[in-house]
Amino acid sequence: MPVTKSEIKFIRQLQQKKYRKQHHAFVVEGWKSIRDFIKAGYNLQKIYTIRELEGIPVNVTIKIINRNQLKQLSFLQHPKDALAVFEMKQTAPLPDSGLILALDDLQDPGNLGTIIRTADWFGVRHIVCSENTVDCYNPKVVQATMGALANVAVNYTDLAGFLQKTKCPVFGTFLSGDNIYQSTLPQDAIILIGNEGNGIKPEIGKLTTHRIHIPQASGAIAESLNASIATAVVLNEFYRRFNNLHHD
Amino acid sequence: MPVTKSEIKFIRQLQQKKYRKQHHAFVVEGWKSIRDFIKAGYNLQKIYTIRELEGIPVNVTIKIINRNQLKQLSFLQHPKDALAVFEMKQTAPLPDSGLILALDDLQDPGNLGTIIRTADWFGVRHIVCSENTVDCYNPKVVQATMGALANVAVNYTDLAGFLQKTKCPVFGTFLSGDNIYQSTLPQDAIILIGNEGNGIKPEIGKLTTHRIHIPQASGAIAESLNASIATAVVLNEFYRRFNNLHHD
Repeated sequence: MPVTKSEIKFIRQLQQKKYRKQHHAFVVEGWKSIRDFIKAGYNLQKIYTIRELEGIPVNVTIKIINRNQLKQLSFLQHPKDALAVFEMKQTAPLPDSGLILALDDLQDPGNLGTIIRTADWFGVRHIVCSENTVDCYNPKVVQATMGALANVAVNYTDLAGFLQKTKCPVFGTFLSGDNIYQSTLPQDAIILIGNEGNGIKPEIGKLTTHRIHIPQASGAIAESLNASIATAVVLNEFYRRFNNLHHD
Repeated sequence: MPVTKSEIKFIRQLQQKKYRKQHHAFVVEGWKSIRDFIKAGYNLQKIYTIRELEGIPVNVTIKIINRNQLKQLSFLQHPKDALAVFEMKQTAPLPDSGLILALDDLQDPGNLGTIIRTADWFGVRHIVCSENTVDCYNPKVVQATMGALANVAVNYTDLAGFLQKTKCPVFGTFLSGDNIYQSTLPQDAIILIGNEGNGIKPEIGKLTTHRIHIPQASGAIAESLNASIATAVVLNEFYRRFNNLHHD
């Protein structure tokens, strides 16, 4: 079945945030991830695939295409087996309990995608982002989440306002913070992660209630950890405490 | 001072492994990282900078250039303040004690760079890579290490042969492994990390002496963690055991 010029144009537009917002739609590539979004209740609008697929909801337009046609549509250097257009979900209400990640102006799509994938692994179901954080429906973000975006609610909001109103303790990582290994880490908490280059902004940092630090080996020269790595280490520490409660 | 065509050509060549090997040289960008390599005893061959710099060894050619000239040389979308050509160091002997990372065909330069940065943070001074692992002097790797490559010895070798000969225990992460939170983690150990898509190859995996697993929250849909994230979580667990010995 031929792919029309207007279809190519429409898919290409969805690389840009303004068109994603306008069409209320985003692209997911690869059947494994597409299935995760279907399972999570996302509305599938259209799917382009190079092979027959099972488990596609009725009333969805399925277009069987060849590899060259998929290449014309795909954002990837090595396209997968399928490309789907999904409708964005209504934004979830801001969370007020559980483990919550708060991101202060994260800029790198790969970092945000990896953070969402890691958050899902450790049971975090809510991420609250500052308005300047990279869009979670950016194709590079979606790709890096490996389907996990389907499982995690992401809000974009005035981060300072959210942190001012919340009743949860707010944990931020700072060089001068307490050793995280020896800190009490509760099950309801907000974990604040700063921008890749500049860390947590001062006006956001002053809203933290607990300053923690990931210990560094003596002789190390790195001044900081990558934002997604720091997130993973902190989430692992919170999760281990919780996990050990149930196993020890 | 003008930048010559042959200088531009030479720097550009160093993006490719075969020319780095031929010239036994690699590029580092940004004064902070350059200083780390100088401190670590790497031989600086030449430096291009947009400002006066202090702490450059005598007998090194310093070329003060303007931002546009730096743009012609730089591999970065947003060039930093300086670009340096360093001589590669003689390969360190294969390690036989301490905490050692072993990488089985890691492909993504960003992942390898982040892994080196994280290894440095947690005190790992040796990484042993399979021959098919991406080159650590790849500019994207060097960039992502944020200078930490200067502090970590990286070997490329027949990984199976190395693991067969070592007396250290070999820890690999597997879905069927033991809960890492409840595992005894020694101070001398090899931590084996697999390829981004395929994990640890079976012929390498059978050389592990300890199979461990990072627990996953119930309800998570991610099937795995990103390779650099898994490395960080495992290194953090090893490091915490060691760190607690000294603090508790």
